[in-house]
Amino acid sequence: MTTNKHFSKRDIDALPQRFRANFINCLSGFKSANLVGTQNAEGHLNLAVISSVVHLGANPPLLGMIMRPHTVRRDTIENITATGVYTINHIASDWVDKAHQTSARYEADESEFDTVGLTPEYLSDFAAPFVQQSPIKLGMRFVESVPITHNDTTLLIGEIQHVLLPESAVTEDGHVDLNRCDIACISGLDNYHKPQHIARYSYAKPDKSLEKLLP
Amino acid sequence: MTTNKHFSKRDIDALPQRFRANFINCLSGFKSANLVGTQNAEGHLNLAVISSVVHLGANPPLLGMIMRPHTVRRDTIENITATGVYTINHIASDWVDKAHQTSARYEADESEFDTVGLTPEYLSDFAAPFVQQSPIKLGMRFVESVPITHNDTTLLIGEIQHVLLPESAVTEDGHVDLNRCDIACISGLDNYHKPQHIARYSYAKPDKSLEKLLP
Repeated sequence: MTTNKHFSKRDIDALPQRFRANFINCLSGFKSANLVGTQNAEGHLNLAVISSVVHLGANPPLLGMIMRPHTVRRDTIENITATGVYTINHIASDWVDKAHQTSARYEADESEFDTVGLTPEYLSDFAAPFVQQSPIKLGMRFVESVPITHNDTTLLIGEIQHVLLPESAVTEDGHVDLNRCDIACISGLDNYHKPQHIARYSYAKPDKSLEKLLP
Repeated sequence: MTTNKHFSKRDIDALPQRFRANFINCLSGFKSANLVGTQNAEGHLNLAVISSVVHLGANPPLLGMIMRPHTVRRDTIENITATGVYTINHIASDWVDKAHQTSARYEADESEFDTVGLTPEYLSDFAAPFVQQSPIKLGMRFVESVPITHNDTTLLIGEIQHVLLPESAVTEDGHVDLNRCDIACISGLDNYHKPQHIARYSYAKPDKSLEKLLP
């Protein structure tokens, strides 16, 4: 496929706002598809689709996510900093429409669980709702907000406290088979996909051919 | 699919190191699949597979990536801060093996372009190599390194200066059709996938059903 089109920074700056938003949001590649579950001090529930969850490290087990303060996700940030906990729930390919619908601007007293038709579920002593329908659910403890001054966003860091998933999805060496769990991914602002497995490879070494591993 | 297995933080802490690395690396969901291209002041080329590229904002067009200082990617960080530029090249599903092979610990005077069989390509006045075989290539200007103190990693922020891609992949409203470009994604440390399109949805509103858009 020939890369026959060149957009320079000047070309990008001249794009209409909506075109640019779609375009730039696609350029990082495929993104994780998650729902962040929170509740406020009064027990009001909130659920927000997010595609910026990123692995930060395995020990301690840390995940980051990029939060844009001037969007509807403000509720999510406020709830996380107020309660200190939140959940990350993987979106399955057969209910991506419900997940996308959580991005609508509902009234403050409406819960996205109710409006889109997903079910809150709890662990004892953990004050954030999980999504029952989600095949992989993470209970997170808020660690830190790192400000990104260039565009007024925040890298919100959390530590994994709980992992709920199907036992059959975890292989002998700790790999989690996301395909088997029917996990979706996102491109751009609004496009959902279901990944098909290509190959899992051995640890690469300079003088050795790669071996294919079982997923 | 029942989520019948529960790992608490205590269970995670007790996992053997390699099992935990595989396990935690899978829990963020599917990840973007990119090769970062750099060169040092002497013109020596470096190419590193990275799965942590994350969208930070469209205006200015910023991408972040998580760098682990104590891995082979140190070359990449040093080259980026020395030259001020780097490239992000999307990995296509038919050469994921070559991309994975860049993670081997080659000698400092070896270029991963040569050892894995990919071709460097340049834009005039831009001192970082693109991957000719990549269907979507980004030329990046280094903006800032944000330290993440909890685990000694860095969020490296760059601004998009150049976008090279097939003209036919860009839709009328600016969306980039990654499926048409045959772009791969990654799970865990070593598992590659090819996403299949499910649906693209309209902007969600509280009182309206979602409409499906053309991808």
